[in-house]
Amino acid sequence: MATLRNSSKSINNSGFSANTSAEGGRLVNKDGTINLKKTGMSFLDRMSWYHLLLRLSRVKFLLFVFLFYTVVNTLFAFIYVTIGIEHLKGTDAGGSLANQFQQAFFFSSQTLTTVGYGHISPEGLVANVVASLESFAGIMSFALVTGLFFARFSRPKAYLKFSEHILVAPHKGGTALMCRVASQKNNHLTDAQAQATIAFHVAEEGRRVTKFFQLPLEISSVNSLALSWTIVHLIDEQSPLWGFSEADLQQSDIEVMVGVKAFDDHYSNTVQQRTSYDASELVYGAKFLPAFQRSADGSHTLLELDKLDRYERVKIESNSFNAAVTTAN
Amino acid sequence: MATLRNSSKSINNSGFSANTSAEGGRLVNKDGTINLKKTGMSFLDRMSWYHLLLRLSRVKFLLFVFLFYTVVNTLFAFIYVTIGIEHLKGTDAGGSLANQFQQAFFFSSQTLTTVGYGHISPEGLVANVVASLESFAGIMSFALVTGLFFARFSRPKAYLKFSEHILVAPHKGGTALMCRVASQKNNHLTDAQAQATIAFHVAEEGRRVTKFFQLPLEISSVNSLALSWTIVHLIDEQSPLWGFSEADLQQSDIEVMVGVKAFDDHYSNTVQQRTSYDASELVYGAKFLPAFQRSADGSHTLLELDKLDRYERVKIESNSFNAAVTTAN
Amino acid sequence: MATLRNSSKSINNSGFSANTSAEGGRLVNKDGTINLKKTGMSFLDRMSWYHLLLRLSRVKFLLFVFLFYTVVNTLFAFIYVTIGIEHLKGTDAGGSLANQFQQAFFFSSQTLTTVGYGHISPEGLVANVVASLESFAGIMSFALVTGLFFARFSRPKAYLKFSEHILVAPHKGGTALMCRVASQKNNHLTDAQAQATIAFHVAEEGRRVTKFFQLPLEISSVNSLALSWTIVHLIDEQSPLWGFSEADLQQSDIEVMVGVKAFDDHYSNTVQQRTSYDASELVYGAKFLPAFQRSADGSHTLLELDKLDRYERVKIESNSFNAAVTTAN
Amino acid sequence: MATLRNSSKSINNSGFSANTSAEGGRLVNKDGTINLKKTGMSFLDRMSWYHLLLRLSRVKFLLFVFLFYTVVNTLFAFIYVTIGIEHLKGTDAGGSLANQFQQAFFFSSQTLTTVGYGHISPEGLVANVVASLESFAGIMSFALVTGLFFARFSRPKAYLKFSEHILVAPHKGGTALMCRVASQKNNHLTDAQAQATIAFHVAEEGRRVTKFFQLPLEISSVNSLALSWTIVHLIDEQSPLWGFSEADLQQSDIEVMVGVKAFDDHYSNTVQQRTSYDASELVYGAKFLPAFQRSADGSHTLLELDKLDRYERVKIESNSFNAAVTTAN
Repeated sequence: MATLRNSSKSINNSGFSANTSAEGGRLVNKDGTINLKKTGMSFLDRMSWYHLLLRLSRVKFLLFVFLFYTVVNTLFAFIYVTIGIEHLKGTDAGGSLANQFQQAFFFSSQTLTTVGYGHISPEGLVANVVASLESFAGIMSFALVTGLFFARFSRPKAYLKFSEHILVAPHKGGTALMCRVASQKNNHLTDAQAQATIAFHVAEEGRRVTKFFQLPLEISSVNSLALSWTIVHLIDEQSPLWGFSEADLQQSDIEVMVGVKAFDDHYSNTVQQRTSYDASELVYGAKFLPAFQRSADGSHTLLELDKLDRYERVKIESNSFNAAVTTAN
Repeated sequence: MATLRNSSKSINNSGFSANTSAEGGRLVNKDGTINLKKTGMSFLDRMSWYHLLLRLSRVKFLLFVFLFYTVVNTLFAFIYVTIGIEHLKGTDAGGSLANQFQQAFFFSSQTLTTVGYGHISPEGLVANVVASLESFAGIMSFALVTGLFFARFSRPKAYLKFSEHILVAPHKGGTALMCRVASQKNNHLTDAQAQATIAFHVAEEGRRVTKFFQLPLEISSVNSLALSWTIVHLIDEQSPLWGFSEADLQQSDIEVMVGVKAFDDHYSNTVQQRTSYDASELVYGAKFLPAFQRSADGSHTLLELDKLDRYERVKIESNSFNAAVTTAN
Repeated sequence: MATLRNSSKSINNSGFSANTSAEGGRLVNKDGTINLKKTGMSFLDRMSWYHLLLRLSRVKFLLFVFLFYTVVNTLFAFIYVTIGIEHLKGTDAGGSLANQFQQAFFFSSQTLTTVGYGHISPEGLVANVVASLESFAGIMSFALVTGLFFARFSRPKAYLKFSEHILVAPHKGGTALMCRVASQKNNHLTDAQAQATIAFHVAEEGRRVTKFFQLPLEISSVNSLALSWTIVHLIDEQSPLWGFSEADLQQSDIEVMVGVKAFDDHYSNTVQQRTSYDASELVYGAKFLPAFQRSADGSHTLLELDKLDRYERVKIESNSFNAAVTTAN
Repeated sequence: MATLRNSSKSINNSGFSANTSAEGGRLVNKDGTINLKKTGMSFLDRMSWYHLLLRLSRVKFLLFVFLFYTVVNTLFAFIYVTIGIEHLKGTDAGGSLANQFQQAFFFSSQTLTTVGYGHISPEGLVANVVASLESFAGIMSFALVTGLFFARFSRPKAYLKFSEHILVAPHKGGTALMCRVASQKNNHLTDAQAQATIAFHVAEEGRRVTKFFQLPLEISSVNSLALSWTIVHLIDEQSPLWGFSEADLQQSDIEVMVGVKAFDDHYSNTVQQRTSYDASELVYGAKFLPAFQRSADGSHTLLELDKLDRYERVKIESNSFNAAVTTAN
């Protein structure tokens, strides 16, 4: 197996540790999140509710909000029943406790949402104070809930689609590591910048350590992420991958982390997305096929998102490659 | 026809492909959008509702929202009629179905908007549950609608006006490619940066390929976009346009993409705008005329936006130009 | 009078024009706005309502909003009266037209704000349709109004206070141009960057032209704008001010434009502020006095904002200065 | 005591003054705020309400808002009682003044929150005008209050935890100054950048002056702040700390200010946090122990936040160190 070249050039600015005996599994998940849990502080100290509520699935978020609405109404219904349902003018005080609770519950919901039909209305000091507090609480808590709902809806996202595989492809007489990315929705990203880091998990003096290398890219920024963008790292003598054969790569415990950030003028904000490829997602000897074509009427270009990962196998001239390796060594 | 000089310097960081056999029409539309459609994923996967609703015209957006309001009210009206209009106290249960629907519809709208007059009010468990859900749904959906309405209104825009033509003008003893830009509204942009890329669509080995060149600008950033800003690319020996005569340019299939980004302290955000010029919008041998003048009382400057594209024809010394070309070749 | 040195180094990236025969008055006003008006497009095309409504004074904004509220209610009141006040249940249809209008007006305001007491309520199709539209319009228009109100309140501002004068002070054996800036409120700015440009309005071949020079600063960025920050341009041989005596400066038609931008972590945003000094605001031979002192108990520092412009006159060694000039020439 | 090396390299871009005779106490507090007060302008001119209300503790903010709600209701209650409670239809005008005030107060709260039950409703011109104004005022003021409430909740924060101590640790055959930082919540920071400045308060010609040095960091930015990040300043010949023994450091009046900024894609914004270490928080001869481990099932990594400050004492080879110092001198 080829030894790791340029090992001295390893600079760990990945945010991960080189001491991977203490790390478990993949560093970065396929969706770009970090494969990490935090301990050592209480749950509440570790919890940002804003992050949690932004990250929940849409269904869970709406369930959460609805649960909150129900719980608050239940709470206030208890209070109104405790005060005495007769202080809610318009209710039927003669009913069962369940019926009284039901009436109080709906009065509560009419107060919390400030719909206030008024066929039921508070009477007397205590009921009025509670109703007055409830409408205040309703405005304040719906401010958070609706703010979050809109923040989720308008949260700047890159909506990038990465190719599922990363290829070692022939390129300019040598080889290059390539993945492909495109924006998948009706968004238009400009000033896009890409960045790639490779992690080699290697055994060193009996320990499993990780060497990180920033991978220089042929073109690291584009003015406009219009079509699909093939992100290319040339495997030249400066590359940590120089001299790795197909077998070497398949046996290596590697992980390539790719990140793209860009500007979206609808959000007026920077968006970013990350992904990661491990050895099983690397194809040695393949090149991407075009993922766009001219429209039938010739007036515009069609970007075919389902073809983003489309590649064909090609033979890499192992001869010239080995020769290069030999020369380099 | 002059051959493309410095062809080796072509670096495609435009986000478009060099393989333009597969591209159709202009790359960038006049309004800065990309002339591209996406396929290969389902409509919903390709659709960001946020982008769609921000991009709709004002009239269409308001119609969309109003339609949404009507549809939701109709839906709830059906539910109330199904439950039985007699559970809405204050309605006339004896009327026709149409009349019942009408009453339910308006009760629904009073609930959805939380106006809740109360001359109609829900009675019994089911009607109360539905009304309670509706006021909740109203608050949540109006949160999106009003959030979007304000987001559209406050969306950071550059409000730039570009000259409609791009000129080849005499400049410092040679020639330069020039377009002009100004902010057209009562906004003040600072730290403005410009960027220009030229695309040459050329025939190469039978295929139509595109060569992209970043055009270096004489001044690529200004502290304040106060007056009109003439963006100048010097056509010197380093320029891909070096050696192109008027005839060459008119026969060329070129596209010049110009982008400006700047900071607007009212939005506290970066804004940007792009445009594109094709060969038909290029004027060879012309120079811009001033687009501002001193105010009548001398106390301030007047920027005349209608004169942004005002230019006069000038003769370019083809002699010295050709001479230079000759020398350079 | 000293001639302008390094004239060839003049680079106009100020956003203003060198052709100042066509410019009137000061370039930048004392409050950092541009002394410019725009013409040549219709008022509506030149007007960004967002910018206008953010820039209005607080009183004018509230008056504007209140006027809007009154006008909309008046409009709807007319509609209700036209439909017939008898379709508003709970009103007194027998009153005068003025009285009818008054009742309709208040019903309108109760609908627009969604307060909906319900002692008056719409009856019949037409009145219900109008009321339903009005509550919808109320929600939509209050979304803009309240959004703007909060946007004004939360708009990122630098709250910088600049010294009113710019000094030519002795500095490191020579002289330097200095002004001073501090954040004046309970805000804390970090990563502050300053930038200064000088404009010389000079007569050249009978025309009034302006030469712009970027002024290099001794320290152009500070980690934290904690205390007052003295912005210093060294008047060395590279400076366009090199060789100017007090008399020269007073006769010169100059304008120094200073801008500071920084990060405010309460807004989580970049803020910026600009100002400008003309010759009348330049003091030749003065140095700033400290604007801070230790608190009485020694536990913290007191920044004295009223002393930001406090300076004392000092003699500039014209001897050594002139000598230097002579040597340099 | 070792003299301050490279004194000439001191560049004060800290935002603090070198003239510390006038400064009191620590420059930067442990929580990153500046130890400074401002005077010399009126309270209102120095006060940004937005900053104040964002900085208040949650409890104080809610109390403030509730107080505001109560005061406004009280105010309007007075007005309604003054007008005459009989103009509020549905109230009992025969009660005591206190009882009248109470009824007016609750009518006011129903109007301000737009809940508008309607069992009480305004009658006559004056009461209607006041109620109409109140609902308008309610919408406007709740816009600020709820906007602020959500702004507080969604305010971009870095949620960083810094080690409580800064260490002088053995590093690559020499020594280095090290502190450690991690994000403590369920947030994920990318493109993190660190910056460190040291302040030496020294006596110079009888005055207490401060020398500031930017401390170069071994790695000043990481792609992803995934695990804990050890921020390392190598104490080499270029370092202002070169040649300082343990005793020297303990006698020095130093302060190390550390700041980290990064991008949080949930806020889509830059976040930052600062801290400061004084001599009492510096441990000479210690190294950090790992703060993460592999999870029990090996599938992910556990970051142990309570171990962020965990270090062990190590002996620093004073021999080689002194030797180096001797050589360097």
